[in-house]
Amino acid sequence: MESREISQAVIRRLPRYYRYLGELLESGVERISSNDLSKRMKVTASQIRQDLNNFGGFGQQGYGYNVKYLYTEIGKILGLENDHNFIIIGAGNLGQALANYGSFEKRSFVLKGIFDVNPTLKGMTIRGVPVRMMDELKDYIRENDIEIAVLTIPKGVAVDVARELVEAGIQAIWNFAHVDLNVPDHVIVESVHLSESLMRLSYNINRYHEEHGLKG
Amino acid sequence: MESREISQAVIRRLPRYYRYLGELLESGVERISSNDLSKRMKVTASQIRQDLNNFGGFGQQGYGYNVKYLYTEIGKILGLENDHNFIIIGAGNLGQALANYGSFEKRSFVLKGIFDVNPTLKGMTIRGVPVRMMDELKDYIRENDIEIAVLTIPKGVAVDVARELVEAGIQAIWNFAHVDLNVPDHVIVESVHLSESLMRLSYNINRYHEEHGLKG
Repeated sequence: MESREISQAVIRRLPRYYRYLGELLESGVERISSNDLSKRMKVTASQIRQDLNNFGGFGQQGYGYNVKYLYTEIGKILGLENDHNFIIIGAGNLGQALANYGSFEKRSFVLKGIFDVNPTLKGMTIRGVPVRMMDELKDYIRENDIEIAVLTIPKGVAVDVARELVEAGIQAIWNFAHVDLNVPDHVIVESVHLSESLMRLSYNINRYHEEHGLKG
Repeated sequence: MESREISQAVIRRLPRYYRYLGELLESGVERISSNDLSKRMKVTASQIRQDLNNFGGFGQQGYGYNVKYLYTEIGKILGLENDHNFIIIGAGNLGQALANYGSFEKRSFVLKGIFDVNPTLKGMTIRGVPVRMMDELKDYIRENDIEIAVLTIPKGVAVDVARELVEAGIQAIWNFAHVDLNVPDHVIVESVHLSESLMRLSYNINRYHEEHGLKG
């Protein structure tokens, strides 16, 4: 199956389907109709039929979707069937939270190293992985087939560290630093800008207040 | 100024403008042209002019935007000028990371309480805020004018906790649990689904490999 045949709009919706199908699998559900899935996911059944027909994972009308088949096919499209070696840069609370994040393991993301600048953290282990100092970073990436770096460091240093990562040949950066990274096109960046999410929350509270006359 | 006059598309882009304008302010820049801002933000100057003209924060052609004025006006639209009392539910690594998250303070989000089910955490303080047990939750929300709850708890319990929050009159939930919360329309939910972000990263790596023939 060629992922390129599937539209970008569908691709954006795939992680949510994958999550729901995974939950169904865990609860032992083998088949589900578009109507039942529609009720759970709160999208229309016709949207679901359109989206999932890209994968052909359905029997005759009335039989519903084969949950495991769809889950597997979507997982392939999302690249979740291959192992991805990754490191975390920044061993603070967020770095530790992500090191302990169960979804990584479940989806073949393999934590290979944790890096920090704080010498008091040197040798500390998180899930059996020792914290290393930043002067080892480049060699470590080159020698251990590291594909992804997770950046949980302050924005003031993130741009420089990203440059080092690119020089060492990293393929992708999962960026939690509150800054846009300037990297070559061949390096994939996915940013989680928490403060932008917080501002959307704040905007919606404010708008609700205004619409309901709850303040001045 | 009425926020309702501004299109949703512009609203979605505001947090990023706010971030760049804040950085300019911090560096002491008082005025900036749409061309200079365009180079920094990597969006077209005409897009910037269209978006920011909603705020009227500009002088004559050639004088550029008044950075502080625009920053303040956008902050008002985003509801960042009012104090927002919040609590964190889940005192694990992610909860602690968010408790220590500087952007909260800078933007008038006031941490009022941290809750957990683990009795060994009772009385522990994070930034001077003690960890309380969940049986105090509802009364605490009612008595302390809590507007926002941040959920950093496993998905298996998040739905029940969200129900308690709604019963206690919470206005908004910043949800990090990997589940869609089912709350009444008047409760605002902003979700950060980390694993969906990770899947987008993985999808893009996979697509890059396929396009460049890096694997079978």
